[in-house]
Amino acid sequence: MKSLSRKGISILGATGSIGKQTLDVIRNHRDEFELVAFSVGENIPLARKIIEEFQPKLVSVKNREDWSRLKSEYVGNIHFVYGMDGLIQVAIHNDTDVLVNAILGSVGLLPTLKAIEGRKRIAIANKETLVTAGHLVMKKARDFGVEIIPVDSEHSAIFQSLKGENQKEIKKIILTASGGSFRDLNREQLKSVTVEDALKHPNWLMGAKITIDSATMMNKGLEVIEAHWLFDVPYDQIDVLLHRESTIHSMVEFQDKSVIAQLGTPDMRIPIQYALTYPKRIPNESESLDLAKLGTLHFQPMDMKRFPCLQFAYDAGRIGGTMPVVLNAANEVAVNAFLEGTIRFLEIENWIERAMNQHHSIPNPDLETILKVDEETRNEMKKWGSKEKWRT
Amino acid sequence: MKSLSRKGISILGATGSIGKQTLDVIRNHRDEFELVAFSVGENIPLARKIIEEFQPKLVSVKNREDWSRLKSEYVGNIHFVYGMDGLIQVAIHNDTDVLVNAILGSVGLLPTLKAIEGRKRIAIANKETLVTAGHLVMKKARDFGVEIIPVDSEHSAIFQSLKGENQKEIKKIILTASGGSFRDLNREQLKSVTVEDALKHPNWLMGAKITIDSATMMNKGLEVIEAHWLFDVPYDQIDVLLHRESTIHSMVEFQDKSVIAQLGTPDMRIPIQYALTYPKRIPNESESLDLAKLGTLHFQPMDMKRFPCLQFAYDAGRIGGTMPVVLNAANEVAVNAFLEGTIRFLEIENWIERAMNQHHSIPNPDLETILKVDEETRNEMKKWGSKEKWRT
Repeated sequence: MKSLSRKGISILGATGSIGKQTLDVIRNHRDEFELVAFSVGENIPLARKIIEEFQPKLVSVKNREDWSRLKSEYVGNIHFVYGMDGLIQVAIHNDTDVLVNAILGSVGLLPTLKAIEGRKRIAIANKETLVTAGHLVMKKARDFGVEIIPVDSEHSAIFQSLKGENQKEIKKIILTASGGSFRDLNREQLKSVTVEDALKHPNWLMGAKITIDSATMMNKGLEVIEAHWLFDVPYDQIDVLLHRESTIHSMVEFQDKSVIAQLGTPDMRIPIQYALTYPKRIPNESESLDLAKLGTLHFQPMDMKRFPCLQFAYDAGRIGGTMPVVLNAANEVAVNAFLEGTIRFLEIENWIERAMNQHHSIPNPDLETILKVDEETRNEMKKWGSKEKWRT
Repeated sequence: MKSLSRKGISILGATGSIGKQTLDVIRNHRDEFELVAFSVGENIPLARKIIEEFQPKLVSVKNREDWSRLKSEYVGNIHFVYGMDGLIQVAIHNDTDVLVNAILGSVGLLPTLKAIEGRKRIAIANKETLVTAGHLVMKKARDFGVEIIPVDSEHSAIFQSLKGENQKEIKKIILTASGGSFRDLNREQLKSVTVEDALKHPNWLMGAKITIDSATMMNKGLEVIEAHWLFDVPYDQIDVLLHRESTIHSMVEFQDKSVIAQLGTPDMRIPIQYALTYPKRIPNESESLDLAKLGTLHFQPMDMKRFPCLQFAYDAGRIGGTMPVVLNAANEVAVNAFLEGTIRFLEIENWIERAMNQHHSIPNPDLETILKVDEETRNEMKKWGSKEKWRT
């Protein structure tokens, strides 16, 4: 039996960046939270550590072999599962109060829908869920009266800025963007940038994929689509503002021209914790923002020609249907190709544009269609480009 | 009969800066608001214009002679009153839904208390009300279940940042301060500044008194005391941050280290309108904030030695009782002496310090005591300094 006084937390993707920071939040608030269940992919050594530290009730791994190995290692109260069924079991575990969906990729989709049916609060960090299936997820959440709480610092900022406000009074959502690793380079200079250059993100500690997405501004593009679904705001009312310090995490302008913003240090544990405690706020060990020490905040208009991936995302969002699925899949394939060294940085945007141009969007897709288009896009793109690395 | 669909607005101090901008808000939203009653001091020409434009039901003037003149000029439905009784009648008029208390000085106190008893919502812009009698006003407001909505841009920002939040979860209130006209001068340079120099405030359009208060930082000091009462937060949890652009109007840091801020252009009609429409927000003609155009926001730690008046305000607030009454009265007398040219800029702070040092604070004062200490402080200070102007 789960302690009645503590919230039961389950995590999809416990060994990723958000997963680990969620564990840190739980670790720092043992009296508030209890880790009920989690999933990992193939990082079994870390899974073992989490099991030993948190003693959860259910653990899901990607592969059958890992499942059978762990099962034999831990005899006792811990239940092991694997594969898609395992993810769903984590999502709907009886003792789960909040599901933190921090898994990467479209595998996060079905467990999210199942968790909503199970009336679990969702702390959403899995981009694919809203980018590719926002229409399904938000409708189901409304139907089941389930709260979808964003974990992303930008969406959490908007969510917090909207607390106590009426969404109908929104004039504009203003997402801030640091500009990523290459914000001070022009298009010409972008031609020769390397993976190593790209991975040096100035503000946040993040995984490789999202750091590249930051440099191409696709990350912000995906966030625009997520914001559209999360806050039910048309694309014309979502702006992106370059703000290199990322101190203002995002803002909402209301129809009376008053702007509410959420600010903070670049510590993801703050929005993660908020997603777990909402509507409450509880103390933590995170650092206070010190604006006097920072001294200066900078803002610049967004240049869609400099960052065409952002334009693609607005286009895909406005076209709707399966176009965001293609946008997302094509981006993932292209970024992987860049990370593996088979294409150059600026080819990422060419690949995405090409994939979108080849696709005829299917309106209002169901889950099956979404997953099919996702797979088709990836298969088609496998045929593209050279298999040889341009760098050694 | 007042139209049922429109909110009845009454204004104490209709010809001052806030009063005029309140009229502008009403003018721009005739379908939302109706001017029920207003008071003026001695600006009878402007009173006539307001009467003709808005056709209110009740008008209060300061002097009996003006009252009898206006009474004979306007025969019909408009009722004229004068003096303190007139102010109270404006405050409690039957058709008043919101009283905008924008009058200057301690005359605003009694009408505020009467309006609370009459269960009118108060949009408060009169500093003396909270600085000198915050304990009486807030207690009465709680007893009668009346909302006190701040009009000041800083307090409105905090009020808006707290919307939907739990006041118990506040870690810190952060008031921003532009630094006033002399923010770039050191103490040595302050010795010789003139009234003309002081009246050039860089961000906001304000009256002379408040512009000087901005330059001495007493304005922020009074705001600290107001914030203490409005939001029930101890002085240790109220910070002041120098922010020359005044774009972030103020902020609240919560115990989870998340900071919520309200931003906007320096247009007082936005917080005035919000105080009238709260909890709703309605569209207006004010300009949107354009951070990309502004480009840069600056922040600096507050230096209490550079701005001793702010320290005096914290001291007076912490001492409590009648000390804030003395702080406020001494400041008013000293600023007037500076504006009249009988003392120099830096003597303002000397006078305030001297007045505070001479006073023994009376705890938990009632209205009578407050008004008595106010008067005594002013009378005592009349004896100080030369009556000759140091400038020509």
